[in-house]
Amino acid sequence: MEIIIAKNTGLCYGVKLALKIARETRRRRDGKVSTLGELIHNPQVIADLENQGVASIEALKDIKEGTVIIRSHGVSPEIYKILKKKKLEIIDATCPIVKKIQRLVAKLAQENKEIIIVGNKEHPEIRGLIGYSRGRGRIVENETQVGPMSFKKKRAVLAQSTQDLYLFEKVVSALIEKTEELQVFNTICHSTQTRQRATSELASKVNALFIVGGKASSNTGKLYQISKRILPQTYFIESAGQITPKMLRGARIIGISGGASTPPEAIEAAVERIQQNFEQHSHEESRIQCQR
Amino acid sequence: MEIIIAKNTGLCYGVKLALKIARETRRRRDGKVSTLGELIHNPQVIADLENQGVASIEALKDIKEGTVIIRSHGVSPEIYKILKKKKLEIIDATCPIVKKIQRLVAKLAQENKEIIIVGNKEHPEIRGLIGYSRGRGRIVENETQVGPMSFKKKRAVLAQSTQDLYLFEKVVSALIEKTEELQVFNTICHSTQTRQRATSELASKVNALFIVGGKASSNTGKLYQISKRILPQTYFIESAGQITPKMLRGARIIGISGGASTPPEAIEAAVERIQQNFEQHSHEESRIQCQR
Repeated sequence: MEIIIAKNTGLCYGVKLALKIARETRRRRDGKVSTLGELIHNPQVIADLENQGVASIEALKDIKEGTVIIRSHGVSPEIYKILKKKKLEIIDATCPIVKKIQRLVAKLAQENKEIIIVGNKEHPEIRGLIGYSRGRGRIVENETQVGPMSFKKKRAVLAQSTQDLYLFEKVVSALIEKTEELQVFNTICHSTQTRQRATSELASKVNALFIVGGKASSNTGKLYQISKRILPQTYFIESAGQITPKMLRGARIIGISGGASTPPEAIEAAVERIQQNFEQHSHEESRIQCQR
Repeated sequence: MEIIIAKNTGLCYGVKLALKIARETRRRRDGKVSTLGELIHNPQVIADLENQGVASIEALKDIKEGTVIIRSHGVSPEIYKILKKKKLEIIDATCPIVKKIQRLVAKLAQENKEIIIVGNKEHPEIRGLIGYSRGRGRIVENETQVGPMSFKKKRAVLAQSTQDLYLFEKVVSALIEKTEELQVFNTICHSTQTRQRATSELASKVNALFIVGGKASSNTGKLYQISKRILPQTYFIESAGQITPKMLRGARIIGISGGASTPPEAIEAAVERIQQNFEQHSHEESRIQCQR
């Protein structure tokens, strides 16, 4: 049996930075430190932060004092205003790439453009971005939502930083038929694009593939969709404990990939679990190939 | 048996206008009247024009006197200069939509943009357009040619007015992966887009489909490709005489479509030919449905 870990698996720059900011803030402040919503989308990491004294609080009204850390996905300008009014200390851990997209949306709104944002309506990054559009933004989740749109002379389109490139291209294709001049901004971050490519390549050479990460993590979910299109034996797991012998049955080459918020320990735990299962059922040796 | 003629079959506005200009020019001028290259891409129409005294001349050096008509596909600014130098009277029959694309290319070149033009290198419209790009234009014939291109911050992309929309979308998708900000101009003319859609719909409900038009006609060629993708029994014919009993064998519903430069008489001749063949082999009645 062989286990192959996908290239580019591991925490991305934005996630690492947010974690560093949160930990440093905790070290330097004596009072209450909280994040407005989960700092990143990974339950183990969030539990770990809570243990260190950084509380993850979902509702704005429940943050009453101390220091508030803005999550890696960013928030709308409206939220900054409310936090300031509450006289909280604000520490911004928005991913620099998301910050750049926020500035782009603000600029396009100032130019009076209609802005199509390709992403998930409920995702915090999208809720943040739409806040910068001054009412000119429109969220599109897939290409079928473009069909009923009216023809326009000019439009701009951009994507959630962790969007599936293939889905973004399909939405752009649909928009071309509805727009005379379309400004396309490929705002999918480089790390997301290379991770998607690596996962898709891996899916085509293994018998089973495990995507490790938080269920709320958009970029991890996209990796699952991408792999599933190629390989039906793709499994989305939050922790190694979810790997069952049934999932491994008959698989000679097994792939593992993880999202931008999946810690290396979660990947290592998955490797161990697969090896243990294999050793229980076979006397052969297992081999690990790490493409990271 | 049933014959269905595709919606939107027939001469487009630009072709009709060019023919009108050529005929009026002939009526009003006593001297030599010629077109630089075929006015439109249809051999019957060109033969008809020659009979009326409008010569179709391929090489610039062979036009020495009188009036020269610029073809519907347009020419580069360089050609206008040469014709002026030769002291010829110039009558411009460039399709107004192509004129608009030429102005767009000139504007983008002035803005120092890299301009990707999706079209056929050898097509006169593309040879004309590239002349307006001041060396900033690059012709791309399909998405595979995008692969080796380097990553750029900004680019603009547009299409030959008669391009296949599906191919244009594929090139745009490939460019998105290579460009941070891509300005997409859907310059495929409305009449081409509706004709392509009508042909594709027809291909999915008939047993055989005849695309009638000149082999050099880009837009007619695109209709053939579009239909062939859906229906293997698609035939590209220049005249009704090319329809053989073998092509019709077993077909109960037969479709006919034609390009922007296909005269109505060519479509009618195809209908007659199919009916004759049917009547020779059957006693049933044939039915014609014209969606035009």
